[in-house]
Amino acid sequence: GAAARAWAWVAACVAAAWSRVAGFAGRVWRIAADDPRRAVHGLKVGLALALVSVFYYTRPLYDGVGGAAMWAIMTVVVVFEYTVGGSVYKCFNRAVATASAGVLALGVHWVAAKSGELEPFISTGSLFLLAAAATFSRFLPTVKARFDYGVTIFILTYSLVAVSGYRVDELASLAQQRLSTIAIGIFLCLAVSVLICPVWAGQELHLLTTRNMDKLAAALEACVEGYFASSASAAAGADGYKCVLNSKASEDAQANLARWEPAHGRFGFRHPYGQYAKVGAAMRACAYCVEALSSCAGADAQAPDHVKRLLRDVCTGVGTRCARVLREASRSVATMTAPGRALDFAVADMNTAVHELQGDVRALPSTLAVELADTSLVDAMPVFTVASLLVEISARIEGVVDA
Amino acid sequence: GAAARAWAWVAACVAAAWSRVAGFAGRVWRIAADDPRRAVHGLKVGLALALVSVFYYTRPLYDGVGGAAMWAIMTVVVVFEYTVGGSVYKCFNRAVATASAGVLALGVHWVAAKSGELEPFISTGSLFLLAAAATFSRFLPTVKARFDYGVTIFILTYSLVAVSGYRVDELASLAQQRLSTIAIGIFLCLAVSVLICPVWAGQELHLLTTRNMDKLAAALEACVEGYFASSASAAAGADGYKCVLNSKASEDAQANLARWEPAHGRFGFRHPYGQYAKVGAAMRACAYCVEALSSCAGADAQAPDHVKRLLRDVCTGVGTRCARVLREASRSVATMTAPGRALDFAVADMNTAVHELQGDVRALPSTLAVELADTSLVDAMPVFTVASLLVEISARIEGVVDA
Repeated sequence: GAAARAWAWVAACVAAAWSRVAGFAGRVWRIAADDPRRAVHGLKVGLALALVSVFYYTRPLYDGVGGAAMWAIMTVVVVFEYTVGGSVYKCFNRAVATASAGVLALGVHWVAAKSGELEPFISTGSLFLLAAAATFSRFLPTVKARFDYGVTIFILTYSLVAVSGYRVDELASLAQQRLSTIAIGIFLCLAVSVLICPVWAGQELHLLTTRNMDKLAAALEACVEGYFASSASAAAGADGYKCVLNSKASEDAQANLARWEPAHGRFGFRHPYGQYAKVGAAMRACAYCVEALSSCAGADAQAPDHVKRLLRDVCTGVGTRCARVLREASRSVATMTAPGRALDFAVADMNTAVHELQGDVRALPSTLAVELADTSLVDAMPVFTVASLLVEISARIEGVVDA
Repeated sequence: GAAARAWAWVAACVAAAWSRVAGFAGRVWRIAADDPRRAVHGLKVGLALALVSVFYYTRPLYDGVGGAAMWAIMTVVVVFEYTVGGSVYKCFNRAVATASAGVLALGVHWVAAKSGELEPFISTGSLFLLAAAATFSRFLPTVKARFDYGVTIFILTYSLVAVSGYRVDELASLAQQRLSTIAIGIFLCLAVSVLICPVWAGQELHLLTTRNMDKLAAALEACVEGYFASSASAAAGADGYKCVLNSKASEDAQANLARWEPAHGRFGFRHPYGQYAKVGAAMRACAYCVEALSSCAGADAQAPDHVKRLLRDVCTGVGTRCARVLREASRSVATMTAPGRALDFAVADMNTAVHELQGDVRALPSTLAVELADTSLVDAMPVFTVASLLVEISARIEGVVDA
């Protein structure tokens, strides 16, 4: 009766909720399994915080730094980033900004104290002016890229010191306490992030670049093959170029962070991270062409089969050779060796194939009516463009002569 | 003698320094003049901070909130963002995260206090686990997009309360004080950012979209004309498509922030910000084609002039009509009216022009040798692709039926 129906309803609800939770857990698990370092990162943050809280619980240490231990915790929470470069960037910014703002605020406070009555006005006025100037400076591109976080901390520290200066008398000792606790936080942070499974932004950038090159090669091959395949089967990997298209933002961010990193592994101190940006731009230019090519493959108007068959072999050949050049370039970047003979050979091979294709297109028997030749030429064009872009990219890669 | 030379050297140094400072000032001035709202934003932050510091200087108010006024300042500095959406996002995250973390920490503290001896271990253990879990949750895409800041604040508040719980006895009153000061900070922040020259993320996104459309139209026209121009003169505006190519990151960020904004002006509460992302994607697809087209114009192998002349008029016609469709679409987005008859008419006109072009290409006199026709067909292809993409984009824009 009603009870049974109610029971069934509850059971259905529970089942639905369970399947939702399971689906969510599955997604979470996949994110963790995709890149276990993410889970490790979570544990690292936990560890750093636990270490800091030990300072708080240990009486002698606590008496040393006093109630300001709070600042050590705050520093760890705010400064700890996924990559080493990110952590160093924030630590450096935080330390420098706190120190400079503290000194400046003490100076202003001293002047204000001399002036007697006017003190609140001088403090508030200087706060207003400095905050406005500092906030505006965040719109400057250089400041935005390198010191964005530092400016925030600068304003924060200055306003805290300037305002509390009116009340608290032992400003200097307060500032000294705060700096020492922040130093503790920064030290712990850097130690944990560098010593335990470090994630280097430079390495990430490096991997991203080589992975994108390989994906681009696979997509190029798949697109050319997909065009000449009899059925409209979407070849696997044909979508690989899409992540190249929108990779600019993450590449820029990682190159920015990588600059802060100390030398590690095969990455020297002044590793030319700027080159990655150039290679990335060349790859994107390439990906635009691949996208045009794949839109040809998906277009409604297709050349008749017998026209396609005439050009199939030579076009596929060009595609394969272009992909090989990309793979060689990717290997040369991955091993950080100057592009060797293999790459030169692959480029030469590609150029030969492109010439062959051009010849074939010219020699297309005039017996084919112009309207039939139309689409096949249309198809040959992007391959040609891609090929010339590939030559360009390989030329640029020669600039990445590192390690 | 030596004095004169030293003097000249000093003068040269001063002049060099002065020219550097002047150059820097000029750049800063240009950034401010480009968008005066940036300077206004700086002043707004200064104003908000000055208002908060008034709380500190006014004795009755100070006695009300106590030394925790610091938290109000911190809130203002950290929460104030350029756009209203950004401020609301951070305010909401900060308030909810502080409250929930505070309640959770008090609960854990209560349990830990019951357990006596084990208290430090329970506190540290829970801190470790929660921090690890919360940090990991930042890798989930939804959390990343909407609650990234909230998670940081959650960890921060939880660790502060959990750790200081061991020392400070009046935890509840501390928490209440902190919440009230944060509320003051948030209130001031929102008031200043909404009431004084507000910068709405939604409006920015709207402007960005229409501006990009116009740029794309100009670039398309310029490219087609540049291709058929006798000399290789880079037409002005031909590079406009480049900012469309890399606009994805900023569009996504603004759409994310715009969701947090209350209704304002012509932007209703549930304004379909998702549509902008779709339009943006369609525009990028278009821009890829324009980039392929412009690379044709810059290529070494050009069709002979008499072939170009045959197709010039009809190609230019297609380009102009495509640009007109884009401009009509941009106007329809700008005025937020459903695409009207003008757009339909422009699309139909464009389709006619494309058909004409296809007909002309087919009818290319067979007297032209195939190798000559080659490049002109190559040229016609991207225009054709662009045209079909334009039809697609205009179809998508019909989805943006707002206001």
